[in-house]
Amino acid sequence: MTSKIVPVILAGGQGTRLWPMSRATRPKQFIELMGNRSLFQQTLERLAGSDRYAAPIVVTNADYRFVVAEQAQEADIALGAILLEPVARNTAVAIAAAAYFALEQDADAILHILASDHAITADAAYYGAVGTAEAAARAGWLVTFGIVPTRPETGYGYIAVGEALPDGGNKVGRFVEKPDLATAERLLAEGGYVWNSGMFMIGASAFIAECEALAPETAAAARRAVELARTDLDFVRLDTEAFGAAPSISVDYAIFEKTGKAAVLPVTFAWSDLGSWDAVWSAHAPDANGNVVLGSALLSGTSNTMVVTDGAHVVVEGLDDVAIIASQDAIFVGRLSQAQRVGALVKQLKADPATQALTETHKTAYRPWGGYSSVLLADRFQVKRLFVKPGKKLSLQKHFHRSEHWVVVKGTAEVTIDGQISILTENQSIYLPLGCTHRLANPGKIELELIEVQTGSYLGEDDIVRTEDDFGRAG
Amino acid sequence: MTSKIVPVILAGGQGTRLWPMSRATRPKQFIELMGNRSLFQQTLERLAGSDRYAAPIVVTNADYRFVVAEQAQEADIALGAILLEPVARNTAVAIAAAAYFALEQDADAILHILASDHAITADAAYYGAVGTAEAAARAGWLVTFGIVPTRPETGYGYIAVGEALPDGGNKVGRFVEKPDLATAERLLAEGGYVWNSGMFMIGASAFIAECEALAPETAAAARRAVELARTDLDFVRLDTEAFGAAPSISVDYAIFEKTGKAAVLPVTFAWSDLGSWDAVWSAHAPDANGNVVLGSALLSGTSNTMVVTDGAHVVVEGLDDVAIIASQDAIFVGRLSQAQRVGALVKQLKADPATQALTETHKTAYRPWGGYSSVLLADRFQVKRLFVKPGKKLSLQKHFHRSEHWVVVKGTAEVTIDGQISILTENQSIYLPLGCTHRLANPGKIELELIEVQTGSYLGEDDIVRTEDDFGRAG
Repeated sequence: MTSKIVPVILAGGQGTRLWPMSRATRPKQFIELMGNRSLFQQTLERLAGSDRYAAPIVVTNADYRFVVAEQAQEADIALGAILLEPVARNTAVAIAAAAYFALEQDADAILHILASDHAITADAAYYGAVGTAEAAARAGWLVTFGIVPTRPETGYGYIAVGEALPDGGNKVGRFVEKPDLATAERLLAEGGYVWNSGMFMIGASAFIAECEALAPETAAAARRAVELARTDLDFVRLDTEAFGAAPSISVDYAIFEKTGKAAVLPVTFAWSDLGSWDAVWSAHAPDANGNVVLGSALLSGTSNTMVVTDGAHVVVEGLDDVAIIASQDAIFVGRLSQAQRVGALVKQLKADPATQALTETHKTAYRPWGGYSSVLLADRFQVKRLFVKPGKKLSLQKHFHRSEHWVVVKGTAEVTIDGQISILTENQSIYLPLGCTHRLANPGKIELELIEVQTGSYLGEDDIVRTEDDFGRAG
Repeated sequence: MTSKIVPVILAGGQGTRLWPMSRATRPKQFIELMGNRSLFQQTLERLAGSDRYAAPIVVTNADYRFVVAEQAQEADIALGAILLEPVARNTAVAIAAAAYFALEQDADAILHILASDHAITADAAYYGAVGTAEAAARAGWLVTFGIVPTRPETGYGYIAVGEALPDGGNKVGRFVEKPDLATAERLLAEGGYVWNSGMFMIGASAFIAECEALAPETAAAARRAVELARTDLDFVRLDTEAFGAAPSISVDYAIFEKTGKAAVLPVTFAWSDLGSWDAVWSAHAPDANGNVVLGSALLSGTSNTMVVTDGAHVVVEGLDDVAIIASQDAIFVGRLSQAQRVGALVKQLKADPATQALTETHKTAYRPWGGYSSVLLADRFQVKRLFVKPGKKLSLQKHFHRSEHWVVVKGTAEVTIDGQISILTENQSIYLPLGCTHRLANPGKIELELIEVQTGSYLGEDDIVRTEDDFGRAG
């Protein structure tokens, strides 16, 4: 019996062009852009839809480790491993590390390399293509999925489709960099070109062999980072020094454009990289006026417009080709057809201390134990909503500048104040005087939710001294 | 010594075209559109800037009585009286009622009729014009302030300036309805026309005499509504039945277009009716790119655009001629040059039960004792921020479906629960079990602010039984 395909999901991207919904601490792949699951969860579900797949390996960075684990759990899909990149070094070394890691378990491992933030319709055409790609990969080919183009897109690289292979797929003719519009139109008119989707099907050992031959520094860094990796809770932390020594280079440049084993499988299933708001708009099937609305809105005399709103009701009158993306603390309004410009604006916001936080965090912050959102911040007090997952506890901590009231609104809280333990249920409250040592835990089976009212002269997150912590943040 | 001019401020309008900032329960005149005072407060301050004015009479409707009183108090300006219109009947009867009311105190009263929601620069030209208008009014003329036009505006009525009067001002040639653009351009080119500002200077008795002759039903309704008026706290409630019998007609149609005593005073001081967002934009002196920003925003490659935001940071890229008005729960985006269309959209929002509330209330509700805003509303709990003015108390009340926690974050609270009184200071909290009879009061000298956490199966405002109330809302 042949072993199952091992999916390798690359989930370390930042997706700045989908700001303000995508932010550094919780980017694009972890938010709900297409329905009520995140793109990462939809990626997991697509894999769960076929019994040809083994449990996926997720490659991400340390900042996203908890959200990866939490979203996989919420989607009820077991992960094979979560590999943590200590620094960002582009895709070549990330894939090489996943390949070395997979080889430790199975010398014949076939890897399906996937983005975590693409929209794909997982239909028969999709699973059929996966089967064809697997066969080609088992025959030793390094297979790229090539999307048959439907428009003269300038945002993707192209691949010229070469001679057909016996088991399906084709040799790669050549790689074409992201073209200008005239070139894109010519490629589309000529035919025989596909978009480089960034999805691959590869034998781990075949890939490693090519990598060692064509990109020895990358291979050496990846191998050593896996050998020296350290397991931490559910995570595999790749070695910082070894991984950091890798050149920052994409797998296309490092391997696929050089190897004689590159194959391409032209596919026609519905695919989008959701690279900017116009791509998200396009993936959502605009209505007769060309409008897409996610959230609550009223559009009048308006066409070719995308509205995304987190809560506020949006009313649009008499506009064409506009993107209106309204989060709770930041709103983007601009030309939908030029929505890729958001990336440059995010750089500008990030460079200004007054707006930097808007590029980094959402109003809700996620933590290993649950999370919180600030619902009201005033001069000398702040109101937060906290949620704590069943069985989790926060660090043992104290504050020098604020006291806190906790009112339990859902579930059960175990509160320790200066060594004294109290159990609070829904509708009970407790006072935490300034300077007390305290800890919050959820001993129950359902989520604990509480309202925290802080009062004091300084309410910053950094007024915290952690004495003990389940998540290695004390001291 | 001649008596002072009695200002009559008409403050009953709804200003729907400035939605979402202007809403039915707290419209345009009561919000801060030009600096950190409301337009109503700026109107009061303009009057306080001259010693020729007596304490103003405000004519408004019952819903606005507390906000009128509160804003006058905040601006530290004593009002002469607050006349409450029981129903909306346009300006003729409102002004007639104010005239009858003023005559009770002074048979020679000169009234300056003012809108509460215009922007006017109170400079020497302004006060000079007031003096000229007063002289003409004392000579028996019913004087309209006519703004010398600076553009072919189609949003205002025009007045042809007739022969000069001996004491300043001119006879009215004729009134011209709001013109189309071609007509407006012709009137501007011809010269001799001014905009009808809706501001008047009239002798109360001269006006009444004309009203009784030309609009006897209006005069009779106004006289009777004043005779039967009832004083309630600081308010004069005009009689509902009598006032309601008045025809709904503007003072222009009913009196000024018919009387032989109509005069017009052409003036050149800076004036705007702030009738829609483009007028607000214009009144704010746009920057070199034609942009006006009220609040926090980043504009890139954008021109002739108005951004108003209540909190969220707005980023605009590559647009021209756009209004972006972002309140906490509703956002308008449309052509700035067609901003008057907001009025029609508000009608549409009002007709839909799902969005009706967005046209009526702001997130913060004002009450005679202070007010509250809902900062978080979830399935089985709600968090509110309450503020109580010094010396005020809420009604004695109970709830059948919710219990409440109160955490004092500023000032001092006197809390009565089932007859037991507690005093709470900053940082203290108290629990109000479901069904208890309770009352909140602020016994202190500074504002009391508290966070209320409600939990229960039903959290509607109507789960309240009032036993006693300082503001006549019990039983």
